[in-house]
Amino acid sequence: MDTLLKPLQELSEKFRSLDGVGKKSAIRMAFSVLNMSEEDAVTFAQAILNAKTQIKLCKKCQSISVSELCPICESDTRDHSVVCVVEDAQSVMALEKVKEYNGVYHVLGGVISPMKGIGPEKLKIKELLERINTEDIAEVIVATNPTVEGEATAMYVSRLLKPFEIKVTRIANGLPVGADLEYADAVTLYRAIQGRREI
Amino acid sequence: MDTLLKPLQELSEKFRSLDGVGKKSAIRMAFSVLNMSEEDAVTFAQAILNAKTQIKLCKKCQSISVSELCPICESDTRDHSVVCVVEDAQSVMALEKVKEYNGVYHVLGGVISPMKGIGPEKLKIKELLERINTEDIAEVIVATNPTVEGEATAMYVSRLLKPFEIKVTRIANGLPVGADLEYADAVTLYRAIQGRREI
Repeated sequence: MDTLLKPLQELSEKFRSLDGVGKKSAIRMAFSVLNMSEEDAVTFAQAILNAKTQIKLCKKCQSISVSELCPICESDTRDHSVVCVVEDAQSVMALEKVKEYNGVYHVLGGVISPMKGIGPEKLKIKELLERINTEDIAEVIVATNPTVEGEATAMYVSRLLKPFEIKVTRIANGLPVGADLEYADAVTLYRAIQGRREI
Repeated sequence: MDTLLKPLQELSEKFRSLDGVGKKSAIRMAFSVLNMSEEDAVTFAQAILNAKTQIKLCKKCQSISVSELCPICESDTRDHSVVCVVEDAQSVMALEKVKEYNGVYHVLGGVISPMKGIGPEKLKIKELLERINTEDIAEVIVATNPTVEGEATAMYVSRLLKPFEIKVTRIANGLPVGADLEYADAVTLYRAIQGRREI
């Protein structure tokens, strides 16, 4: 057994292709599959196919959905005049956990990244503009991640939205709650001072 | 979207059931599947089924194999008179990587663990005794992990083998190479002193 058995090798390569899975973890997961019951393995394989085939993008906000419109876009109790622009469906989940935001979302499906060959045309920006033209939107909150690409995308989107008569805001940068000034990086500290508020 | 979409939830639970996968990683993996091409998702599902159906236990050593006998048991160049008893196929892989051991293996398929309800009858000990009765074995190296259960299993196996006229050995405990005495635990240090050798 110089190397892994071929079916095990192939399976571990599949696990390896998932986000954040290293080589050793992938092999361990492949072994876990071997230790499953036949039935569990079948439902696992089926779960992959189900997720892939049943989940599509919401026609409106481009987040993931099992129906034409996602529950948030369909809801009567949400404020449809506030749209939070995020990178991906995971960001929607993160914001929904807070249970504080009552507006709706628009998922760009990524960020502008010349390094990865992702230009604005590959994002759902066209769809955002169409919503602004057709819906009654008062505010767009740009909530892409505070990374280089996320900031660049936020700038791009906010410039595009300038001609429209709507309020465009960006989520705040600053120290995360529970953090220590001593360990904060300079840029974060700078932004925290810049964004200071009266108390 | 109070919770995850059902198909995504089901898939992430499947990932969660794998060894060493936490809740957050499982969700991230499920999202990775969504971002895969349809084709990749299908081959992923197929890889799970292939691994499960094509891999069986070697008739002789009980390690994993795609054929009746594994390559090690079938090999002419290996020393079939030395059998290394290990917990699982992963241990075989780890030992094979060293390229130093030229004997064969016997995989117990676990360790005795009263807490988990695993008694000796659930392990491939019967099969080991049968090999000792029918094959020409000179030495059995017990290489279960140096954990409480691994040690107990090693003791159990070595006692069972007492009546046979074969050498039974246990892999050495001691400091791992590159370790620091300062950080070694007391039991390991004690074993390292006990197992000292003339140089």
